[in-house]
Amino acid sequence: MAGNSIGQLFKVTTFGESHGVALGGVVDGVPAGLTISESDLQIDLDRRKPGQSRYTTQRREGDEVKILSGVFEGKTTGTSIGLLIENTDQRSQDYSQIKEVFRPGHGDYAYWHKYGHRDYRGGGRSSARETAIRVAAGAIAKKYLKDTHGIEIHGCLSQLGPIKAEVFDWSLVETNPFFFPDASKLDALDEYMRDLKKQGDSVGAKVTVVAKGVPVGLGEPVFDRLDAELAHSLMSINAVKGVEIGDGFDVVTQNGSTHRDELTPEGFTSNHAGGILAGISTGQDIIASIALKPTSSITISGKSINIHNEAVDMITKGRHDPCVGIRAVPIAEAMMAITLMDHLLRQRGQNPHVDVPAPPIAATR
Amino acid sequence: MAGNSIGQLFKVTTFGESHGVALGGVVDGVPAGLTISESDLQIDLDRRKPGQSRYTTQRREGDEVKILSGVFEGKTTGTSIGLLIENTDQRSQDYSQIKEVFRPGHGDYAYWHKYGHRDYRGGGRSSARETAIRVAAGAIAKKYLKDTHGIEIHGCLSQLGPIKAEVFDWSLVETNPFFFPDASKLDALDEYMRDLKKQGDSVGAKVTVVAKGVPVGLGEPVFDRLDAELAHSLMSINAVKGVEIGDGFDVVTQNGSTHRDELTPEGFTSNHAGGILAGISTGQDIIASIALKPTSSITISGKSINIHNEAVDMITKGRHDPCVGIRAVPIAEAMMAITLMDHLLRQRGQNPHVDVPAPPIAATR
Amino acid sequence: MAGNSIGQLFKVTTFGESHGVALGGVVDGVPAGLTISESDLQIDLDRRKPGQSRYTTQRREGDEVKILSGVFEGKTTGTSIGLLIENTDQRSQDYSQIKEVFRPGHGDYAYWHKYGHRDYRGGGRSSARETAIRVAAGAIAKKYLKDTHGIEIHGCLSQLGPIKAEVFDWSLVETNPFFFPDASKLDALDEYMRDLKKQGDSVGAKVTVVAKGVPVGLGEPVFDRLDAELAHSLMSINAVKGVEIGDGFDVVTQNGSTHRDELTPEGFTSNHAGGILAGISTGQDIIASIALKPTSSITISGKSINIHNEAVDMITKGRHDPCVGIRAVPIAEAMMAITLMDHLLRQRGQNPHVDVPAPPIAATR
Amino acid sequence: MAGNSIGQLFKVTTFGESHGVALGGVVDGVPAGLTISESDLQIDLDRRKPGQSRYTTQRREGDEVKILSGVFEGKTTGTSIGLLIENTDQRSQDYSQIKEVFRPGHGDYAYWHKYGHRDYRGGGRSSARETAIRVAAGAIAKKYLKDTHGIEIHGCLSQLGPIKAEVFDWSLVETNPFFFPDASKLDALDEYMRDLKKQGDSVGAKVTVVAKGVPVGLGEPVFDRLDAELAHSLMSINAVKGVEIGDGFDVVTQNGSTHRDELTPEGFTSNHAGGILAGISTGQDIIASIALKPTSSITISGKSINIHNEAVDMITKGRHDPCVGIRAVPIAEAMMAITLMDHLLRQRGQNPHVDVPAPPIAATR
Repeated sequence: MAGNSIGQLFKVTTFGESHGVALGGVVDGVPAGLTISESDLQIDLDRRKPGQSRYTTQRREGDEVKILSGVFEGKTTGTSIGLLIENTDQRSQDYSQIKEVFRPGHGDYAYWHKYGHRDYRGGGRSSARETAIRVAAGAIAKKYLKDTHGIEIHGCLSQLGPIKAEVFDWSLVETNPFFFPDASKLDALDEYMRDLKKQGDSVGAKVTVVAKGVPVGLGEPVFDRLDAELAHSLMSINAVKGVEIGDGFDVVTQNGSTHRDELTPEGFTSNHAGGILAGISTGQDIIASIALKPTSSITISGKSINIHNEAVDMITKGRHDPCVGIRAVPIAEAMMAITLMDHLLRQRGQNPHVDVPAPPIAATR
Repeated sequence: MAGNSIGQLFKVTTFGESHGVALGGVVDGVPAGLTISESDLQIDLDRRKPGQSRYTTQRREGDEVKILSGVFEGKTTGTSIGLLIENTDQRSQDYSQIKEVFRPGHGDYAYWHKYGHRDYRGGGRSSARETAIRVAAGAIAKKYLKDTHGIEIHGCLSQLGPIKAEVFDWSLVETNPFFFPDASKLDALDEYMRDLKKQGDSVGAKVTVVAKGVPVGLGEPVFDRLDAELAHSLMSINAVKGVEIGDGFDVVTQNGSTHRDELTPEGFTSNHAGGILAGISTGQDIIASIALKPTSSITISGKSINIHNEAVDMITKGRHDPCVGIRAVPIAEAMMAITLMDHLLRQRGQNPHVDVPAPPIAATR
Repeated sequence: MAGNSIGQLFKVTTFGESHGVALGGVVDGVPAGLTISESDLQIDLDRRKPGQSRYTTQRREGDEVKILSGVFEGKTTGTSIGLLIENTDQRSQDYSQIKEVFRPGHGDYAYWHKYGHRDYRGGGRSSARETAIRVAAGAIAKKYLKDTHGIEIHGCLSQLGPIKAEVFDWSLVETNPFFFPDASKLDALDEYMRDLKKQGDSVGAKVTVVAKGVPVGLGEPVFDRLDAELAHSLMSINAVKGVEIGDGFDVVTQNGSTHRDELTPEGFTSNHAGGILAGISTGQDIIASIALKPTSSITISGKSINIHNEAVDMITKGRHDPCVGIRAVPIAEAMMAITLMDHLLRQRGQNPHVDVPAPPIAATR
Repeated sequence: MAGNSIGQLFKVTTFGESHGVALGGVVDGVPAGLTISESDLQIDLDRRKPGQSRYTTQRREGDEVKILSGVFEGKTTGTSIGLLIENTDQRSQDYSQIKEVFRPGHGDYAYWHKYGHRDYRGGGRSSARETAIRVAAGAIAKKYLKDTHGIEIHGCLSQLGPIKAEVFDWSLVETNPFFFPDASKLDALDEYMRDLKKQGDSVGAKVTVVAKGVPVGLGEPVFDRLDAELAHSLMSINAVKGVEIGDGFDVVTQNGSTHRDELTPEGFTSNHAGGILAGISTGQDIIASIALKPTSSITISGKSINIHNEAVDMITKGRHDPCVGIRAVPIAEAMMAITLMDHLLRQRGQNPHVDVPAPPIAATR
């Protein structure tokens, strides 16, 4: 496959560059009869939208999504859904400075060598701007999962640089500009970000996504395990350098006697596994975390080269997020929704005679 | 797709259960003309084989692989390669004890609910025994990558419980039963494992895999990024709970000014990215690490339930690895090889006119 | 896969209904560096466009295609190409008559039972209107095949009802409204179509497509044979009920001694095989023909039922082609181009070291 | 994809050459709980097996299939099923004569140029011997379709050279060595085949396959139409040069008023469409026909060349079918079963809430 599609039965295909005419995509495999409208998609797009707070880029994009097909009289028809977001903030900038230069930490160098011809405006296809369409597609999946199966997906920023959430108060997440679940750390976050901006630097972050109400049995054996496909979809988000399921890298120092989640007639007694065993969902909460690198677009000068292999000094001007992890929260939710949706359809196709039992009592950290 | 295949142009499909007649698979997409024999595959199978040291399971499997097709007069013909490994150590055990019980930490519970009918002998399809075929398939990819492009893939155990490699001496890895790269820690490892065995417990581990000589340009934009596909293939290994590319979760606390790898006319000055930017290989070493959970098959009693939802106490007898991370080293190499091979063919198909330049000087941790 | 994509390395995904807002699609896998513009696509769109002659529907669609991404400074970048055609002729018709009725010979009945919710306006997704995007995507493939490999694809109407081409004068095809290659039959065609219109009936047709300059070696063994994939892509065109490669159904009465194409040092002496043997291209012309049924939208009354299973009489009013085969010519060319393009990339990925020899002298009927 | 797999949710992957060690495959996506045994597969393998009558090749292959995985205690587990057929009749022949020669009408020339290295023994991978595994895989699909949905698939030889079935008496098909449904033509067939053998020539044939009891709604819009996928799977059978659905090429001369199948509250009044409209099954019988070319392996001398481009005269000795169409009957059934099975699972995954109604009364030719 060329690289711009994900999923098997629920499949998302996208196009569009940072400074092109428009972003768009095709969402294929949505069952017929789902009530959906553009405003359902807009909610998540607005959560991802730049310029929402002083902690994110001030680039202003309306990010208004249009549904071009596949929905008739307010309900899906089962045929492919065309999505379109016009790029309204294509400033006629002067790109002469970055046209021939590879920005360190970006895809410029690799794209140049891979393709030999490159849309250098704002990173072109490699810009995180393309994730707007992921969020729109994910919103369709989220609505289907919730409306038909009661599955809910929530994400939050669980760490920003050295500041780590100790408490997961989900009711707090949508009330602060960081999507942060720990009230006691909000002031520290604010202060940290102010300092960072002064320095002209950026910082990494950790985002955690949880899906509640997922039935037992999603995921296929061996290669298409649910965790493997989640790793794929989450790692495909720009700037992600690591993916964890459940306890993640903490398992390296754990013993089997502490890690294994014991079972009782009332359900699991813990959820170190993050809701997935042997690649199949167990009915507990699905828990995944991702590590996002600090954006490389900073105002501190860095060494680089141009296409003629000449040394240059590089300062990235423009409107950039000092911590891309913040706006990654709705993107991570979208990718988890896309993957769960695909596996729900696949499981239903392949094992329909098995009753999907109500999930047992979940013990979630 | 049903779940037992991975890859697009280079595709591996497998079958087989822990205690079935045989394991096997089909390796499709190997270019014609590669010199290969069963002994090339056997080398890696022997590295993965149980019973190699006192630190791994004493189950004895010959793991002798047969090539059934696709190779003629010592060279591949370009058609699909059939692989077969007969299960020789199928002891006619008494399974009545685990037949109706879900072993905690294993796939038993999820498989039961997913399928409603389950091969309970040794975990059936969910047993890590299936990875033998992955290793055989990966050996074909490794040979192709090395013979035709000089790409070499090496793995090691970088951490076992609390014991962490500080030095990466690759020449040491194949000379000790832990695949460990740090000579100063070998005694500690030995002692730790003895204690663990006495306790009847198990421990987690971290495995690191590095590919050297990978050209610039492998990986596709957006969803089929090289790192996303590596995350998929590595997370699909049994017991893996986390995947990192380059600095992985360390990026959470890094600043952009330290993380970004600067470029000079002589090459990159560091490799925090692990050889992948925007999902495309940069020519630097590809570096990935995985976290493997401690095996749940331990002799310390644990709570569980049976298929009648009755509480039971569970002790896993039998021959199990106290640290599955050790034998995971060749498996992780195989999965990286499979993914790189697939992307090499895809890049060649899609962008043939672009010269693949020699990789610049790599700065690897 | 959900059904709206075709191809592996060169992949086309489409969306859009007959009377929706717009048609669109994503063309993924176009190698970087191809010179392309909207006008290159418009040429074939205009050939397919309704209202071009009195023999085709008088529905007026501008069918103006926009390229939304993947092309920068006139050349492809290797990333996905977004295409959009707005539906300009969405008359606010009264659909109350067909809303609950299944038109005989159309997909209405099957769509209703499959999906339970249906865009009944003009057939919705099942309308041949969606083929506009196929033609646009195919034009990209055609340009790549011609510019980089000298492969040319031409189609013609080889039979309309009882009137069969005996001569294949390709220079004639674009000069008459039937895409017909036999000058001696043009008057008869004109007369036949006038009579047909008077009767309010429709008629079937046969379309033949030929690709010249295809190198030896395209197609994969067993399931992804070039002829099997061509059969797939050509049969996917609306109204097609049969596909032939080379001599097609004539082989049923042939003997082996007459059918087999003999080889001489100067090339093949005949081309009964239509350029494909054992699923692989031989370097001769690829020849395929398709049978298109007469459109079921005619003004002669027919029996049908509505969604309440009540008998109704049905007359299809509106602007319909009396022979859909005519406008199918550019569609068939597009589908052949898409399939050849995909296999060209796949062959290049999988067998790069084999020289693709110049095709031997072709003996084409 | 490399070419040796077919299907999405129900997926078959095969390997093996005519004179290699063994043929085999992986059948992935069979739902758990299907009762199946090797003898269920053997029935169809024996129908395909050579040497069954004096009209087919005398090569003797036991064609005994082994199930290596995926079945436990007589029922499928939902995991991948490994299949193996050992080649027992690998005579240590002298291949020096054909080693460097391209047999006309075979894949030799194309394989040589595609791969550059070729298993020349009996055609290697391009031999129809590989279809044995398709038949075994198809038998699993047939059993599932029949046991769980009452769908039955039957094939017959509908024409051999000039001799055409006028009557379709399905009860006759399994009682004569031709799989022929018209008792009045059996003597003529016998005589025709005797003459053909004397001449050392071969002849083409037409095979028709019918599926009864298929529910409404199988098939996806646009590219993955049921007819398009059937065309793919049927055209992938060795020697097939044409595929028809329903009336097939007869539609070219039909009028819309005669072709369209009218609907009444009691069901369709005819079945010109062959059970598929707009790519979706209608509940009527699915009817498909294929044209098989005369085998090129005949004892009448033909012109060819060798790998040095030198002219040679070619007589194919050995044990060959004078009409490959006869043994193609179970193969065509298998391919239709594989495609229907895949679409049944896909439809179930994608549109589960829609009731699949009992098929209306079918009017089948």
